[in-house]
Amino acid sequence: MQTARLLIRCPDRPGIIGAVASFLHMNGANIIALDQHATENLEGDGHGEFLMRVEFQLLNHDLARETLLESFDALIAKQHDFDYRLSYAHERKKTALMVSKHDHALLELLWRWQRGQLPTDIAMVISNHPDLKEKVESFGVPYHHIPVTPDTKDEAEEELLSLVQGKVDLIVLARYMQILSPRVVQAFPQKIINIHHSFLPAFVGANPYRQAREKGVKLVGATAHYVTEALDQGPIIEQDVGRVSHRHSVSQLRELGRSIEREVLARAVRWHLEERIVVSGNRTVVFS
Amino acid sequence: MQTARLLIRCPDRPGIIGAVASFLHMNGANIIALDQHATENLEGDGHGEFLMRVEFQLLNHDLARETLLESFDALIAKQHDFDYRLSYAHERKKTALMVSKHDHALLELLWRWQRGQLPTDIAMVISNHPDLKEKVESFGVPYHHIPVTPDTKDEAEEELLSLVQGKVDLIVLARYMQILSPRVVQAFPQKIINIHHSFLPAFVGANPYRQAREKGVKLVGATAHYVTEALDQGPIIEQDVGRVSHRHSVSQLRELGRSIEREVLARAVRWHLEERIVVSGNRTVVFS
Amino acid sequence: MQTARLLIRCPDRPGIIGAVASFLHMNGANIIALDQHATENLEGDGHGEFLMRVEFQLLNHDLARETLLESFDALIAKQHDFDYRLSYAHERKKTALMVSKHDHALLELLWRWQRGQLPTDIAMVISNHPDLKEKVESFGVPYHHIPVTPDTKDEAEEELLSLVQGKVDLIVLARYMQILSPRVVQAFPQKIINIHHSFLPAFVGANPYRQAREKGVKLVGATAHYVTEALDQGPIIEQDVGRVSHRHSVSQLRELGRSIEREVLARAVRWHLEERIVVSGNRTVVFS
Amino acid sequence: MQTARLLIRCPDRPGIIGAVASFLHMNGANIIALDQHATENLEGDGHGEFLMRVEFQLLNHDLARETLLESFDALIAKQHDFDYRLSYAHERKKTALMVSKHDHALLELLWRWQRGQLPTDIAMVISNHPDLKEKVESFGVPYHHIPVTPDTKDEAEEELLSLVQGKVDLIVLARYMQILSPRVVQAFPQKIINIHHSFLPAFVGANPYRQAREKGVKLVGATAHYVTEALDQGPIIEQDVGRVSHRHSVSQLRELGRSIEREVLARAVRWHLEERIVVSGNRTVVFS
Repeated sequence: MQTARLLIRCPDRPGIIGAVASFLHMNGANIIALDQHATENLEGDGHGEFLMRVEFQLLNHDLARETLLESFDALIAKQHDFDYRLSYAHERKKTALMVSKHDHALLELLWRWQRGQLPTDIAMVISNHPDLKEKVESFGVPYHHIPVTPDTKDEAEEELLSLVQGKVDLIVLARYMQILSPRVVQAFPQKIINIHHSFLPAFVGANPYRQAREKGVKLVGATAHYVTEALDQGPIIEQDVGRVSHRHSVSQLRELGRSIEREVLARAVRWHLEERIVVSGNRTVVFS
Repeated sequence: MQTARLLIRCPDRPGIIGAVASFLHMNGANIIALDQHATENLEGDGHGEFLMRVEFQLLNHDLARETLLESFDALIAKQHDFDYRLSYAHERKKTALMVSKHDHALLELLWRWQRGQLPTDIAMVISNHPDLKEKVESFGVPYHHIPVTPDTKDEAEEELLSLVQGKVDLIVLARYMQILSPRVVQAFPQKIINIHHSFLPAFVGANPYRQAREKGVKLVGATAHYVTEALDQGPIIEQDVGRVSHRHSVSQLRELGRSIEREVLARAVRWHLEERIVVSGNRTVVFS
Repeated sequence: MQTARLLIRCPDRPGIIGAVASFLHMNGANIIALDQHATENLEGDGHGEFLMRVEFQLLNHDLARETLLESFDALIAKQHDFDYRLSYAHERKKTALMVSKHDHALLELLWRWQRGQLPTDIAMVISNHPDLKEKVESFGVPYHHIPVTPDTKDEAEEELLSLVQGKVDLIVLARYMQILSPRVVQAFPQKIINIHHSFLPAFVGANPYRQAREKGVKLVGATAHYVTEALDQGPIIEQDVGRVSHRHSVSQLRELGRSIEREVLARAVRWHLEERIVVSGNRTVVFS
Repeated sequence: MQTARLLIRCPDRPGIIGAVASFLHMNGANIIALDQHATENLEGDGHGEFLMRVEFQLLNHDLARETLLESFDALIAKQHDFDYRLSYAHERKKTALMVSKHDHALLELLWRWQRGQLPTDIAMVISNHPDLKEKVESFGVPYHHIPVTPDTKDEAEEELLSLVQGKVDLIVLARYMQILSPRVVQAFPQKIINIHHSFLPAFVGANPYRQAREKGVKLVGATAHYVTEALDQGPIIEQDVGRVSHRHSVSQLRELGRSIEREVLARAVRWHLEERIVVSGNRTVVFS
């Protein structure tokens, strides 16, 4: 019995849930979870969007994906202007992790993956530093060291793209401290997740913990978001915060912040892998 | 355009979502939210339960409730062994609030209700003390003082029942410090909500803050639950906690606790009024 | 037996705690709480500041405040360059609350005050609207309506100052939607507390909930801060957040946000009244 | 310059802070943090206890520990009935970690220790299973496998005691699933920290996640506590919780719970190592 997920985005109008549920039922699929959301139209001009996630089991083993899609397209998707994707749980996504020197976010992902909590194949770790090679390889994951300097950035990205393009479905920046060029970002739309160590939109850019300390905020946070060409401006997937006070030294603040980063990034990556995230405008809807 | 909600509980089997969604669609209803859950079978003997909440708009004004229900019964409900209820958002539930002397939970509910955040008619406040009469009446709500002593408990409950039975749909114990007898509880199954000032099942019974202090816990909490005949054992609807330390005096701890009680109770009552809660065994599923 | 609090700010150097504790002990004071903090020097040029709060009981009833202060000045304060203030718990501060139309933050403060949880005399409520007059007066607190229009702003502030200057020790902006001019702000340095309905520095200015929704953040927050001439930039006293998702309608988001505002503002005001806050640079240290 | 910490417990009476602060000052010590607490007397018979933590720097390198203690004893400690201990930050405690099969809590401690966030020497890991040997040794820490069966429990504990007695200062049970006998517990009073995977006192004993699920609680938690002879009843050091709903499968609930366990245990261990915990009765005061 195969488990599949259907993610749908379309103009909001009546009857969509019924149409999709009936179609699946008639084609021998058993819906095990259905979630949906109609976005408000903040600008007030016309309709919002309708977003839906359906998880179902295919009882009919003979129903080929092509047949299902063809029929779905013809009967429903075109009629309702669906932007949709279908994925099967057994076809695991391939993931590349990127990191510079801080290992906390990377190790958290590797450790959860090793325990079976992240449904993906981690194809490789890529770093602009050699430092974490041994640790990564102890998980049985290949480590690629691609140094980046201002002069060699173009070649470095060339090498990066040759490693990942067509070979991985998701790139996770687990504290990778280089800014990716538009060329890389465009090659992986909504397929690069970054962890930023502040509660965005507060403290964009470098040294957010220091910015937070100087501002005297009473909570520090972390934000996982999709990478777009605008630095730290992409759709937010998940955020969390922890309470701090003057009693926190800088190192305690960083320690607390790292715990939050690890949790937030791990949640965001799992949701992406389980096809729980739809991007609508510059915001995400997470069917968690 | 009327908004209605359908809450369904039945044995878990394939096809239910599709059947219900199709039925509603064919009868001119536009589904605006659909949520469902299949309970695990913790004991492992046989199947779990399937729980579903559908919120929909009835475009066809002429479709009478009776017709809808008759048709729903005949076509779907019997076939799938549904235990279900249908309610219309414009038919507001009637609520009685009960309180002893502490006003914080009561005032929170009255205040939210006055602001339009609790979709109900607050029909009356009932108290075993006269203290809060003036405050309650300033909200335009009748106040009934029914004193309770060990000797007069039976008559007091008689009076209580004559006030509420057949007249209200929900009773909220907003820090009502008397234990209701089984007779009252049985008259309002899953229709009495209590706020207990601890994180249940820790600290059942009297003086939970004192118990918490003596045990030295680092978080204090509050629990909203349906009242059953077993003291503080009914299905939990909502809980929350706040952090405490040795720096909290008893009065600060109580102050913090009361803030939590107010939030937790208000959320639970709103969810009940919006038909978001299904009880399965001794647990709730909240489609929030 | 009188309870007094001493708040001290001075250049960080050895021996201060011992000197103060010994002085108090020798003068018949029993220290019941002592807390201190040495700020880091983020810029790295020279020393940080030393901040201290001492709460003590004066066993010697005859020791006049003047004598104590004179002696403290001569023996310790000058030598260590203390910026300090001494206050007695029984000399309650006088507070003015200011509000526009939203009553949630105002009522929270009035409730807590009525229950004895805010050690202050609430001298008056001032509003640019007449709407909340009846509610406020039911607490036995005078209500002053001072309309503000662009043309009359100067006169309105004149009237405001004539009400509060020399008459109250603290002004709390409990959702007062007018910007106070520098003249008013300068008359009450670190004595005006505002509640802003976002997690500052995110979403400065108008409509923070709308800004939050458009940005798609996963947590909404509130910030209590001292008012300075720069809008929403004053020293942060307290902050908190709550989790939101796409399931929150705008009104639910606002309802959640208001719960957070109420808590955050009430905590900040209590800390101020209990002399727990020291401002160092543009940050606060809260000895809670 | 040496950093030292003094933890004091004594009957509550006036003048203690002043006496200690003056003594330290006169002996060339610079106090960098001083925290104290007077416990309430919950039973109401007689006085509470006074607890104090002082962290100071010894400017006078020649002041031997013996001289300091002798003088402190003679001048202050005896007079005020102090139960106290003095420790130097540079004399790192030695720690043994014990684990069965679940690696999450153990790895968290090893990671933090490797990053320099836990000021201790991890002398060994002891397990009743061989499974985690390789992982532990990759951190450069010796692994001792001591199998435990009902028949061999006495000998196993003999072996355990021979490894740890006189050799380590702290034992951390990082999900060690055997119950230690009174003999072992008595050999390490307030020196064994356990992590229990529930919000104690709820769900004592085996399978707390299953208990939590059956009860239908809306938050799951973890508790770090000192081990006493009564199972899961020792003084609580730290607790935290996370929100769950019906949407959490058992494995997601366990995954969330483990994140909380890791955080809670790591905080408790750090506080113990930094001498921030005083036990008073069956409760802890944590000067964090």
